[in-house]
Formats: sequence, C-alpha cells, structure tokens
Amino acid sequence: MNLLLLHPNEVDEASIARLSGRRLEHAREVLRVQAGQTLKVGILGGLMGTAEVLSQDAQALVLKVSATEPPPPRAGVSLVLAVPRPKALKRVIPAVASLGVDRVVLVNAARVEKSYFDSKVLAREFLDGLVELGLEQACDTLRPTLEIRERLKPFVEDELATWAPRDSVRLVPHPTATTPLRPVPASTHVVLAIGPDGGWVPFEVELFSKHGFQPVSLGRRVLRGEVAVPAVLGAVRAAT
Amino acid sequence: MNLLLLHPNEVDEASIARLSGRRLEHAREVLRVQAGQTLKVGILGGLMGTAEVLSQDAQALVLKVSATEPPPPRAGVSLVLAVPRPKALKRVIPAVASLGVDRVVLVNAARVEKSYFDSKVLAREFLDGLVELGLEQACDTLRPTLEIRERLKPFVEDELATWAPRDSVRLVPHPTATTPLRPVPASTHVVLAIGPDGGWVPFEVELFSKHGFQPVSLGRRVLRGEVAVPAVLGAVRAAT
Repeated sequence: MNLLLLHPNEVDEASIARLSGRRLEHAREVLRVQAGQTLKVGILGGLMGTAEVLSQDAQALVLKVSATEPPPPRAGVSLVLAVPRPKALKRVIPAVASLGVDRVVLVNAARVEKSYFDSKVLAREFLDGLVELGLEQACDTLRPTLEIRERLKPFVEDELATWAPRDSVRLVPHPTATTPLRPVPASTHVVLAIGPDGGWVPFEVELFSKHGFQPVSLGRRVLRGEVAVPAVLGAVRAAT
Repeated sequence: MNLLLLHPNEVDEASIARLSGRRLEHAREVLRVQAGQTLKVGILGGLMGTAEVLSQDAQALVLKVSATEPPPPRAGVSLVLAVPRPKALKRVIPAVASLGVDRVVLVNAARVEKSYFDSKVLAREFLDGLVELGLEQACDTLRPTLEIRERLKPFVEDELATWAPRDSVRLVPHPTATTPLRPVPASTHVVLAIGPDGGWVPFEVELFSKHGFQPVSLGRRVLRGEVAVPAVLGAVRAAT
C-alpha cells in the first residue's frame, strides 16, 4: 500500500479521519505507524496529499488530513475485457486500476466459461475492493468505471457508441491481424477489446470490426490476460 | 498450456516421444487427448511443430513428433531485475519467459529483503519450471538465460559489459527521471534495470548511471513488478 485511500465521508469538517479494519491493521502491523508520523493519503475520487498520525491504537487510527494535489493523469484507455478466470481476474483488476484505465466492461465471449459469471469475484463489492488495491498501489484516487455485461453483441451494437468517447481509436488485438499494434498519441482516446484465453472467435472479431475496431497483431506470442493487458497498454500509450 | 514442451532427449531417432508426469496428466485431464489427435509441440531450445497422439493411457502419452518451424523472434531485451517477493517472482518469471526476454539476472538491491534469497522459488529447478510455464503459454521453445547475483555492485561493475550485447541501449526506470520511456527500434538491444517494490535507492541509480544506464520515467504511477515488466517491455518494443 503506497497510498492510504480514504472515502470522502471518512474525513470530517476539521479534516480528521478515524480508520478501523483493514487499513488500521495495515498501518499498525505493516507500516508500524506512530503518532506524529506522516502518511501519503488520497481521497477516493478526489485529491491526494499527506496525513499526520494523531493517534493509533487497536481501535482506531486517527489522522489529520491535508489533500491538495491532483491525482495522476488518466491513461485515456477504455477496456472491453472478456471475463478472465476468477483467479486471473483478481490480478487483472488491480493491474487495470493501477494503470489508470478510464473504464472497463467485463463481457461474455464464446471462450469464456459460463461458470465465471457465478464467481464471487464478480460481486460488486469484491470488484471495488480489487480496484482500491490497484489505486493504493499506483497512488491514484480515481477508479475506472466498471461494468459487467453477460451478452457481448447487444453491448457492442447498442451501448458502445455512448460508453466510450466518440473520436476514439478502436483496436482489437487478434493473432491473424497483419497490422502491428502501434502507439496512439496521448490526446486520442483508445478503446481496446482484449479477448479471453484462446482469443476472440471469428464471429466476435467480425462484430468488433463492423463497429470500427481495427484488428492489430501483438506478434506470435500468446500472452496471458494479466500479461497482455499491461503489455498492450504500455505499447499503445508509449511516448513517441 | 498452448504448446507441449519436449526436452530434446525425450524425442528418439524415429521422432517418437513417450511422456509421463505433469504433461501426461495435463494432456489426459485438461486437453482430454485421444489417439489420432494432433497437438502443438515444441522442442526446448529448438523447433516447433505438431505431434500426433499414437496412444495415451495412465502410464504414458506416446507422440509422433514433426517439428520444422522456428520459434518466434526474441524480444531483444535483457533484464536486470531486483528479486521480487517470492509470490510475485512466481508470476514474473513466467511472464518474462512468455514475453521472449533474452536474459534475466535476478539481483539484490537495498530494498530487497534478505530472506527472499532463501526462498525455494529461487532454486534452479523451480525457476526452470516457471520458465517452461511461460514458454508453454507463449508457444516458444527458447528459454531466457537466468542467473542470480547476491551482490549488485560487482555484477554491474564487472559482469554487465560481457553479459549483455555491447551496443545495447541501457535504461533504468526511476520516478524522479524526466525523460519518458520511449520505444527503441527493434534492431537495437535494450537492457532494462527494474527495481524492487519501493524502487532503486539513489546509490543504485547512480551506479547504473555510471555504467551507461539512462534514467527514464514511467509517469507518476507506482506499478507492481509483475505489471511494470510487461508494461515497460510493451512500451520499449512498441512498433513505431
């Protein structure tokens, strides 16, 4: 945890926050904080800064918060992500949040196992927790928006146009594509459709193509979702 | 497992391979192979191709191998990697292998916990297993060379010059750097020095700088090793 995340309603009018639970435990047992010490903090959805530890005991960590800095800039990326197996999802969501992705929609696909949608990892509260882990790691306060769609086709046909910014570049990595993935200028928003293990099936690639997605190649290597997502983001947002 | 990896001495003069253990189990229980079926195979350090299943039972999977294709091209990247915590190392090594990194040296650093060097994950046999997982994922047969150095300074001062190709670009991602990380043409080898959680300390950055490494910035976000490695590789090897 590189940043202690506070919910806006946890900071009172005198800028005092009283924390318990996971963050109190982490502060006491891992960071071993003492009164007088300063911690890096961020207010979810808002500013970042520091907090002075006023007191700490088994019941509460009491902080005096001073948050005046803006969070880091967004990646300018929206992600259409085929639901990965639950174990992989637990790593992908914090990674996606730490990379500053603007919005994520977890979608069904032909090669996504139906049972994944019953996983507790897809529960809203669990996903929110994974997002916060990523923000704490990256020192950011802005969550990606996060949605789940059990049907891919209606999402692409009916929702995508308003879900992502209008003038964005849309890319679908696919092994048979001949155009390599190239960096896109930071001023242009990018929508990436990243398939499941085994990839999108031809019908799905065709559906994306029909809706303005260009198939791009990542080379011959077959990468796991949790490796592909940061690698693709690194490539598409590389400074040129 | 997208590719069944065979050791060269497992394939006899008649191109027959008899497998047991993990790969037999995987073929029977996950892939549910039957006689007559074709599998994608690769020979460690050599060619890739297909194999016909001649027979399979609880004792052995018998294959007729035909390997004539070259593995995918290398990334042209050497990695000086501060030893991550063992749990992260288990994910980073397969990722590094799947990305086609040419060589890795796991090094000590001020912010690496001493205890990591006693972890069973650093045992040669365990590391080799992690590398093979990455190759099976990516459909590759070439392992990165993999070494461990418990002292950073002598490695950088005495070994680095001969360890990596002479005319390579050397980069050390560091939060205070002002030059952003940019793609490097594919024809130029890149040496990356990726620090531990918490980063390299100033002394270490200075040591790298003295030996031709340029500090580069990845932006304000603090990324976990397992996210930073694919993101940095994606950025540095982005097609431009």
